[in-house]
Amino acid sequence: MKHPVIILVEPQLAENIGMVARAMANFGLSELRLVSPRNGWPKKGAHSAASGATHVLEHAKLFETAREAIADLHYVFATTARERGQMKRVLGPDAAMGEAQSRLGEGQGVGILFGRERTGLENDEISLADAIVTFPVDGQFSSLNLAQAVLLVAYEWRKLAGAALPFSGERRSPPAPRHMVVSFFEYLETELEAVNFYPPDKQPIMARNMRDVFHRLELTEQDVRTLRGAIRALAEGRRLRKP
Amino acid sequence: MKHPVIILVEPQLAENIGMVARAMANFGLSELRLVSPRNGWPKKGAHSAASGATHVLEHAKLFETAREAIADLHYVFATTARERGQMKRVLGPDAAMGEAQSRLGEGQGVGILFGRERTGLENDEISLADAIVTFPVDGQFSSLNLAQAVLLVAYEWRKLAGAALPFSGERRSPPAPRHMVVSFFEYLETELEAVNFYPPDKQPIMARNMRDVFHRLELTEQDVRTLRGAIRALAEGRRLRKP
Repeated sequence: MKHPVIILVEPQLAENIGMVARAMANFGLSELRLVSPRNGWPKKGAHSAASGATHVLEHAKLFETAREAIADLHYVFATTARERGQMKRVLGPDAAMGEAQSRLGEGQGVGILFGRERTGLENDEISLADAIVTFPVDGQFSSLNLAQAVLLVAYEWRKLAGAALPFSGERRSPPAPRHMVVSFFEYLETELEAVNFYPPDKQPIMARNMRDVFHRLELTEQDVRTLRGAIRALAEGRRLRKP
Repeated sequence: MKHPVIILVEPQLAENIGMVARAMANFGLSELRLVSPRNGWPKKGAHSAASGATHVLEHAKLFETAREAIADLHYVFATTARERGQMKRVLGPDAAMGEAQSRLGEGQGVGILFGRERTGLENDEISLADAIVTFPVDGQFSSLNLAQAVLLVAYEWRKLAGAALPFSGERRSPPAPRHMVVSFFEYLETELEAVNFYPPDKQPIMARNMRDVFHRLELTEQDVRTLRGAIRALAEGRRLRKP
């Protein structure tokens, strides 16, 4: 077992179970356990809500009680939106996944219990857990959808597991070498002089200000080629229009 | 403007708009803009999916185009699941909200564009943005539900805004002072001696091991009272059963 296990206790709506599977798959979790889903299992509607995360649904394991669902695990978190008066550590999803990561690294099995859509986990179920996970929600509007709660845990798991973003902006053109930038500046200033852009005596200060604008862009080679081409087109267009 | 603005471009399903409103309200965001929702607005089904976040839906502003929806903003992120070949910075939701926070602090308006459920944002819409936000999803299963994507941005916003968890485990009983712990150990050892628990010559090592078990618990005053009461009940129950 290398990843945390997601355990849904008496989930009611098939759509929510499907969306949980999708949220898990988005962030690389795959082990789902279901404790007595209302109206049985499999349920109509779960697969379409899973949007293709069928591998998670098809391998989901069924249990009668939360106690049986966690029997093989070594460390268990219970999620709850409100204080239950139980003397347990209370962690956000980020700190909880940090704890999960170090325990999984030691070979322990780690699970997170999520309660019923309306009423959450019962106190006796929370009592089975080592620690509590809750979310930094707005106190005025604290009810998270079941799949949203699972998503935040899975997302924090994946962030801690060091997952990179699927792509980066680094395939840009390389930064332009300084000679290319200076040559572009000189070309631009020559063309501007040719159309009497600079008032008398203002050329040095206006040219410096213009250079500062372009320096702020941290121009790439491609940027310089693009800008140079645009300036040339404007300048030559003007020449062509002249008699 | 103190919070980032969430902008949905041509959202299709009323349920998704409602769930976006709920996700925003969960993490303290309230300004929603809708660009040409399919089949008009308001739409049936959005309110029930919002689960009470009606203030967000009722104040949502309607626009014809993405360009109009961002006209008063100073910095705009575009969310996309796949590389678009645009030379922009690419950030995760955490780094993006860090950038948003510092710009909002300077009085800038900041918005995040989210695309259509199936096809996302068009390249011309991404072109309107200063930077790209993407999520550290599993490459095998990278399609996030619209409300899930909004949720992650809102969650990272709220984390960066320094929101505390809604409750903590710190209302525990205070840690037991050492004299209380040692007195409990002595009581336990006396009762165990009375029932010949310790084999001859093993008393010191077994007592030390037992003390270590309890020390690991970092006992609170309430813990010591609870355990002491349980030992007393066991010891006295045994005495009562004796003739």
